[in-house]
Amino acid sequence: MKSMQFNTRTHTCAELQAGNIDEHVVLNGWIDNRRDLGGVIFIDLRDRYGITQVVFEPSFNQAAHEIGGNLRNEFVVSIEGNVRRRPEGTDNDSIPTGKVDVMVDKVIILNKALTPPFQIKDGIDVHEEIRLKYRYLDLRRNEMQNNIILRHKMYQSVRNFFNENSFLEIETPVLMKSTPEGARDFLVPSRIHKGKFYALPQSPQTYKQLLMVSGFDRYFQIVKCFRDEDLRADRQPEFTQIDVEMSFIDQENIFSLVEGLMGKLFTDILDRKLESPIPRLTFDEAMEKYGSDKPDLRFEFQMSTLNEIFGNSEFRLFQETVQSNGIITGLVAQGCGDYTRNQLDVLTEFAKKLGAGGLIWMRVTESSLDAPIAKFLSEEEKQNLIFKLSAKSGDLLFILTGPKMKTLSIMGQLRLEMARRLSLIKDDANPSLLWVTDFPLFEWDEETRRYYAMHHPFTSPRFEDIDLLDTEPGKVKARAYDLVLNGNEIAGGSIRIHDSGLQSKMFNTLGISEEEAETKFGFLMNAFKYGAPPHGGIAFGFDRLAMLFAGEDSIREVIAFPKTSSGTSLMDDSPSNVSDDQLKELHIRLK
Amino acid sequence: MKSMQFNTRTHTCAELQAGNIDEHVVLNGWIDNRRDLGGVIFIDLRDRYGITQVVFEPSFNQAAHEIGGNLRNEFVVSIEGNVRRRPEGTDNDSIPTGKVDVMVDKVIILNKALTPPFQIKDGIDVHEEIRLKYRYLDLRRNEMQNNIILRHKMYQSVRNFFNENSFLEIETPVLMKSTPEGARDFLVPSRIHKGKFYALPQSPQTYKQLLMVSGFDRYFQIVKCFRDEDLRADRQPEFTQIDVEMSFIDQENIFSLVEGLMGKLFTDILDRKLESPIPRLTFDEAMEKYGSDKPDLRFEFQMSTLNEIFGNSEFRLFQETVQSNGIITGLVAQGCGDYTRNQLDVLTEFAKKLGAGGLIWMRVTESSLDAPIAKFLSEEEKQNLIFKLSAKSGDLLFILTGPKMKTLSIMGQLRLEMARRLSLIKDDANPSLLWVTDFPLFEWDEETRRYYAMHHPFTSPRFEDIDLLDTEPGKVKARAYDLVLNGNEIAGGSIRIHDSGLQSKMFNTLGISEEEAETKFGFLMNAFKYGAPPHGGIAFGFDRLAMLFAGEDSIREVIAFPKTSSGTSLMDDSPSNVSDDQLKELHIRLK
Repeated sequence: MKSMQFNTRTHTCAELQAGNIDEHVVLNGWIDNRRDLGGVIFIDLRDRYGITQVVFEPSFNQAAHEIGGNLRNEFVVSIEGNVRRRPEGTDNDSIPTGKVDVMVDKVIILNKALTPPFQIKDGIDVHEEIRLKYRYLDLRRNEMQNNIILRHKMYQSVRNFFNENSFLEIETPVLMKSTPEGARDFLVPSRIHKGKFYALPQSPQTYKQLLMVSGFDRYFQIVKCFRDEDLRADRQPEFTQIDVEMSFIDQENIFSLVEGLMGKLFTDILDRKLESPIPRLTFDEAMEKYGSDKPDLRFEFQMSTLNEIFGNSEFRLFQETVQSNGIITGLVAQGCGDYTRNQLDVLTEFAKKLGAGGLIWMRVTESSLDAPIAKFLSEEEKQNLIFKLSAKSGDLLFILTGPKMKTLSIMGQLRLEMARRLSLIKDDANPSLLWVTDFPLFEWDEETRRYYAMHHPFTSPRFEDIDLLDTEPGKVKARAYDLVLNGNEIAGGSIRIHDSGLQSKMFNTLGISEEEAETKFGFLMNAFKYGAPPHGGIAFGFDRLAMLFAGEDSIREVIAFPKTSSGTSLMDDSPSNVSDDQLKELHIRLK
Repeated sequence: MKSMQFNTRTHTCAELQAGNIDEHVVLNGWIDNRRDLGGVIFIDLRDRYGITQVVFEPSFNQAAHEIGGNLRNEFVVSIEGNVRRRPEGTDNDSIPTGKVDVMVDKVIILNKALTPPFQIKDGIDVHEEIRLKYRYLDLRRNEMQNNIILRHKMYQSVRNFFNENSFLEIETPVLMKSTPEGARDFLVPSRIHKGKFYALPQSPQTYKQLLMVSGFDRYFQIVKCFRDEDLRADRQPEFTQIDVEMSFIDQENIFSLVEGLMGKLFTDILDRKLESPIPRLTFDEAMEKYGSDKPDLRFEFQMSTLNEIFGNSEFRLFQETVQSNGIITGLVAQGCGDYTRNQLDVLTEFAKKLGAGGLIWMRVTESSLDAPIAKFLSEEEKQNLIFKLSAKSGDLLFILTGPKMKTLSIMGQLRLEMARRLSLIKDDANPSLLWVTDFPLFEWDEETRRYYAMHHPFTSPRFEDIDLLDTEPGKVKARAYDLVLNGNEIAGGSIRIHDSGLQSKMFNTLGISEEEAETKFGFLMNAFKYGAPPHGGIAFGFDRLAMLFAGEDSIREVIAFPKTSSGTSLMDDSPSNVSDDQLKELHIRLK
């Protein structure tokens, strides 16, 4: 047990410079690499901060050299010794300590290490399951350490921004009331109150609105939220949100606040200047031009709605589409006129898999269009089409028809697929931020034949649309907005309803009975009766933001201990069985 | 719905000064107070920042004055008007805006308000249950706003401190593995993995140790933790912890780090200088002198162990106590020699209720001791007693005998009771910080006839006591420490075991079988085999710290939405019933 006694380090492994030569130092860390060069042993000693080369030479210290011979990668050691100038020609300019090394005269093995299941280095080719099982080793790798450090900096940057802007950080409960509307709640059985349950928050939405009723004026929190959703590739059952709410404001106040926050993050984390102002698109524009409510604007490549051109077409498909209020949308793939029939079949299959009836394609020739459906179109239609799409000889046109939202969305995905094939996204492209506004307030669900809130039931309709709530709910636009970064939704928010009467009307449109509304949200509706200010807010997906800033493809790369897409922690094998006694105390049993 | 349209405020309700006179301003806020002085209406408009007086005068603006007549307390309004110098003699020096008021020429009622169930002001005499039910109104009160703002400042102060000291903020999972050892876990049934459960963290203990294995070197987090404990007055099922862990350190590094943190908090929050260094007591000293492992040192008033004096006493009770390794402990209550028999009976009852067999008392007279048991003591014993306790004529002595820890603890509580009666704690006493060190590693539980870890099973024994693990576990001291503020434990921590062999031995002493240890903590034990550094840490009870800094008596006063001691949220009536469908999806049913 002597191994427990060691001296506190005098320096980290990133600190020693030429100025420290001849000092006696103590370093603690891990063996990153060991080279035995005929009697002299060189070791790269690693800690979070960096690497320092330490040298075991029998002529300098025989005892230390002997221990040095027993060291293996990932052993934990404390060494003491003298800093010296590295011998001529052995400098390592790639590390800050590369001009010196430490001649060891004392070494203590603080802990040994088995051979790790994978190498502790960047760019390893190891199945993610193995990395997750040994996450504590995976996190030793430089790449992962950098991601976690970036995330740390983001926390501080975000909080400092809100603190400087008079926002108050207020914690909201994790054990709350179950009010499922949208995703499923995680439930927590109560031991003290038999048969009753808490829920984990899907978001602190109701609490932050209550804080506005309390007059806190400006609230923020970086907070864990929970959704018991079905398996989706890059979702976690628990995720982190930057949650924000303000009183006495309108959308513009949120936009300028968020522009300030993103500007600070761009500066602090990416060392880039934010291009200001952040552009805006309405939901309708975004769908028609990009087939997505979170378009990636790092490249143009717009879709066009062609209903006007084909309003009186003889072609039956176009006729029927226009008559049934469907959409005809087109996209030009520049220079793809030479795609083979096989390539076109693959793309048709791509569209069909997404639910399209088929994919119309046309090659643009010097004089006109070459395509299976060309014979059904008038020359005027063809020329209008070419003009509208600014198509040139050698281009390829795609046309999709069908119900508006679905068809636009499929074309949007085809757009992304073509962008990928055409390498339209450059590695050095500027990050593209975008506001999407004026979302529909409701989505109609064909299956349950009712409206659902597109954001959530507390979102305010636009003033001018309030009267439509009774007559045509589907046409009501919300005072809701999303922030999009490189095609990823990174934040969403809205101006809220602060009037109990309007809130009741909203629940009514959603098919939530007065009784149900009272049981679930009575406390909020009641609070609104005691002087609720106008308010609104926004919430950022912190994990996704960190992922994008880190240049990673998965949020698991920026979470210290993530779960798999089935919600399993491979490291400790949770969720796991629990004892019968535990269940008994909670008044539940397995089904 | 016109009420939704209003202008953004130009100033908060705390901003307007003499320099703003003649400006046209917009203020948004709540009606705090309304005085109709024969036609002219004065309103105190309130927001989080302060109060501004606004004036409705019919001659200035007739329309605004009419609406002003309809305003009631807690209505939410937007007003516009001109700042003017208050008329001679009507300044209010108690508020920053007291030199001016605003002549209103436009007012919009943004929301009306029912009459609140209690007044929105400080020092109200209202049952806490009502305050909790209408928490959103309770939080409007100045006292509560100040507590929440103080808490906000504490978060920022704490994080800035750790950030400046190279600590990384790292989030650990909320959905984790159930490993109950000590308190009960809250459980979360898994929908995807039938029959399996997550647990909510009692602390991120295992994760922070794994982060040390990963080499993060310095970790902190302000994090929610959960314990499903039985009802206790000032506990919450969820509570907030400042969680800290460091590698390659010893106790002294933790002590100096924490001294830095407390110094910063004293400066930032209390505007006081921390008296440095923080004094230290071992657990044994604390128990013998103060009968508590968290003594309140704002006043002296020490107990004394009297076994030496009565080692050879003729008095059977003392004889038997000494022979059975019990303790004889004494306390002097200065000037209480005139306590009546009735007062002494009350104190005897106090001690008996805590489990004492009886309470021995003696009045100190000019020459000797006056007490029922005086006749059993020799004159030498009496004089030694008076000398040892520095007792003076007119004082009252208390003596308790019995098993050591229990008896010291009862005397400790009598000490606090007497301090209260003697008003020994002055309102303006300096806050008293104290380290308590060298805790026993184990506590023996008579009922289950096994040892329990006094802190937790990952706590390292002192080097010099490791051999005692096999022979006399009860004598092993831990490398554990608590930080005490005014008699409240505000933090606790330890140097951890980082050797898988020693950890196994520890589990063994705790009666945890190898199989159970493997199932519960296998991942941690395994991690220790891949190069775990020496490490240790500490965790602060953030709620309690905020409570003490705010000068409150209950942590509920510094939590925005607390639960009652039975874990109920009176505002939204959770925990609550959930639907059968929800339970079915989770594969559980009620018992």
